[in-house]
Amino acid sequence: MKISKIGEFGLIEEVIAPEFKELVNKHLTGIGDDAAIIPIDEHTSHIYTTDMLIEKTHFLRDKISPYQLGYKSLSVNLSDIAAMGGKPIASYLSIGLPKDMEVEWVEEFMKGYKSLSEEFHVPLLGGDTTSSENNIIVNVGVTGKISTKHIKLRSTAKADDLVCLTGKVGDSAGGLQIILNDLPEDPIAKKLLEHHLTPPPHISEGLWLSQFETVHAMMDVSDGIASDLKHILKASQLKGTVELEHIPMSNELIRQSEHYKWNPLELSVSGGEDYVLLLTVDKNEYETMAGKFREKFSKPLYQIGYLEKGEPQIIYLKNKKEVKDLKEGYSHF
Amino acid sequence: MKISKIGEFGLIEEVIAPEFKELVNKHLTGIGDDAAIIPIDEHTSHIYTTDMLIEKTHFLRDKISPYQLGYKSLSVNLSDIAAMGGKPIASYLSIGLPKDMEVEWVEEFMKGYKSLSEEFHVPLLGGDTTSSENNIIVNVGVTGKISTKHIKLRSTAKADDLVCLTGKVGDSAGGLQIILNDLPEDPIAKKLLEHHLTPPPHISEGLWLSQFETVHAMMDVSDGIASDLKHILKASQLKGTVELEHIPMSNELIRQSEHYKWNPLELSVSGGEDYVLLLTVDKNEYETMAGKFREKFSKPLYQIGYLEKGEPQIIYLKNKKEVKDLKEGYSHF
Repeated sequence: MKISKIGEFGLIEEVIAPEFKELVNKHLTGIGDDAAIIPIDEHTSHIYTTDMLIEKTHFLRDKISPYQLGYKSLSVNLSDIAAMGGKPIASYLSIGLPKDMEVEWVEEFMKGYKSLSEEFHVPLLGGDTTSSENNIIVNVGVTGKISTKHIKLRSTAKADDLVCLTGKVGDSAGGLQIILNDLPEDPIAKKLLEHHLTPPPHISEGLWLSQFETVHAMMDVSDGIASDLKHILKASQLKGTVELEHIPMSNELIRQSEHYKWNPLELSVSGGEDYVLLLTVDKNEYETMAGKFREKFSKPLYQIGYLEKGEPQIIYLKNKKEVKDLKEGYSHF
Repeated sequence: MKISKIGEFGLIEEVIAPEFKELVNKHLTGIGDDAAIIPIDEHTSHIYTTDMLIEKTHFLRDKISPYQLGYKSLSVNLSDIAAMGGKPIASYLSIGLPKDMEVEWVEEFMKGYKSLSEEFHVPLLGGDTTSSENNIIVNVGVTGKISTKHIKLRSTAKADDLVCLTGKVGDSAGGLQIILNDLPEDPIAKKLLEHHLTPPPHISEGLWLSQFETVHAMMDVSDGIASDLKHILKASQLKGTVELEHIPMSNELIRQSEHYKWNPLELSVSGGEDYVLLLTVDKNEYETMAGKFREKFSKPLYQIGYLEKGEPQIIYLKNKKEVKDLKEGYSHF
């Protein structure tokens, strides 16, 4: 059977993870969350995450600058640390490069990587440099530190929680449309592209939210809410409802969508690569927390739905009516 | 300027590392040793290493079985942990695969990876699975644990130390010759191939040696003694002498070399991928330690040379006479 038949999650769940269940003991949290957890003492844990970016799968060389690729390679990993509520403390970079590439390309890549390293005080401590036949390959790993009691998993959501986002979604998917369809890079398109090519990791938001016991589950939005919320529902064995009218979208996305006849709701819910945080919050504490969040970050903690007891699945509502197809969901706007 | 002009070490030393010097503080050891060091309390540190293997650069798909590739991907990383004197505690696997590959290939790969994970009790805790255009890409990371005072660096060798190896060298380079020249896989060739395709990491040796204060510097032999010893000499600012008649080689390598007119000394000294440990030992303690080593591991701790004050460079001697060219060195055998 070809691996394309079972896909990434199939490979992980059916081929890779089962082999190792017995080797993972109760002190270690393994495959299945944003980062692995290794307790280092009674109160503190290290968390570790890694992501691989391959040319033509994750990016096109002539559509992303080396600076942007350097930034994004680190950012998507910092986002996983943010998703657990952790503070990043070190990064590691493996890079495979075709032999005919220019040293200047690598210099620019490192500048982008370093700008984010400096912003969050994360030194690059090691890695590997090697040659690759034709495609650029980047693998970054990040170690984070966290108070063990503050760790936010996917599996600890509770019935009656509200589902929230730390930022707007869909801009990155809009940016990808600009790239894939070779659309003109006007100022609005540039805004969307920026979010696709250099998404800022929500480290500060994650660290702040992790202090609250009333934040029950957290992850980052890398594959899109439609896919990512399902991970929380499956891990926590709960049913989720998303109220489509509450999905936060930028004006730029709405305007570009009108212009190009995109469905912004599809881009926001199924697009992915947003790297905002998706979390579930005790419904009785939401108002207080959202108030403090706005005070701290000058933006809303967007509430987009709620959880209930039930089979793990997402129900989409538009003005209280169930919507089976996101296309339909948007035509009702 | 093309990156092929400055090479891997040039890229690391001139482009990647300098950017990050100011971000690495005194508590963290960064780029330039086998693994990064992150202290976790007064007495203990985590160490972390990562290596990327790319098809056509590091292996040929039809010359290594998926089981062997899974084994080797983990082994080369465990070897870096061994080189610091550490105990591996967790691994992470990023794998990029062309879409038309078979699930069975991945199953076999995981079997090889797991066999070594089980041998050293190292659970796989996370990673990334993604598609790749045409080449298989594997990036493994390993976290290890170590008593901080037992850490062995490249920079702490001392004048008058003896240079030692924990095993024979050259078999892996011999195996590579078999592969590259499509030579018949007779039983002797198979022995060499085995060392090239599934090199065992010297974890137990590294852990045992790390207890001794009289072991001053240690690293693993991945690029060949000629290249790797230079790293120790440069980091410790010492001159090294290698006595070619003491380089330990297997009978299989000698026999295949006679058969194919290879120079076994070139393969042993410059070949690489041996994954034995290269260490420097207080010369007054060598005899005692080698005795205990033999008792513990049923093999010699091979002494191949010595260090002195002086400019970082390697002098090769053959029966006390200087040899400028390894080819010449072997013709004198």
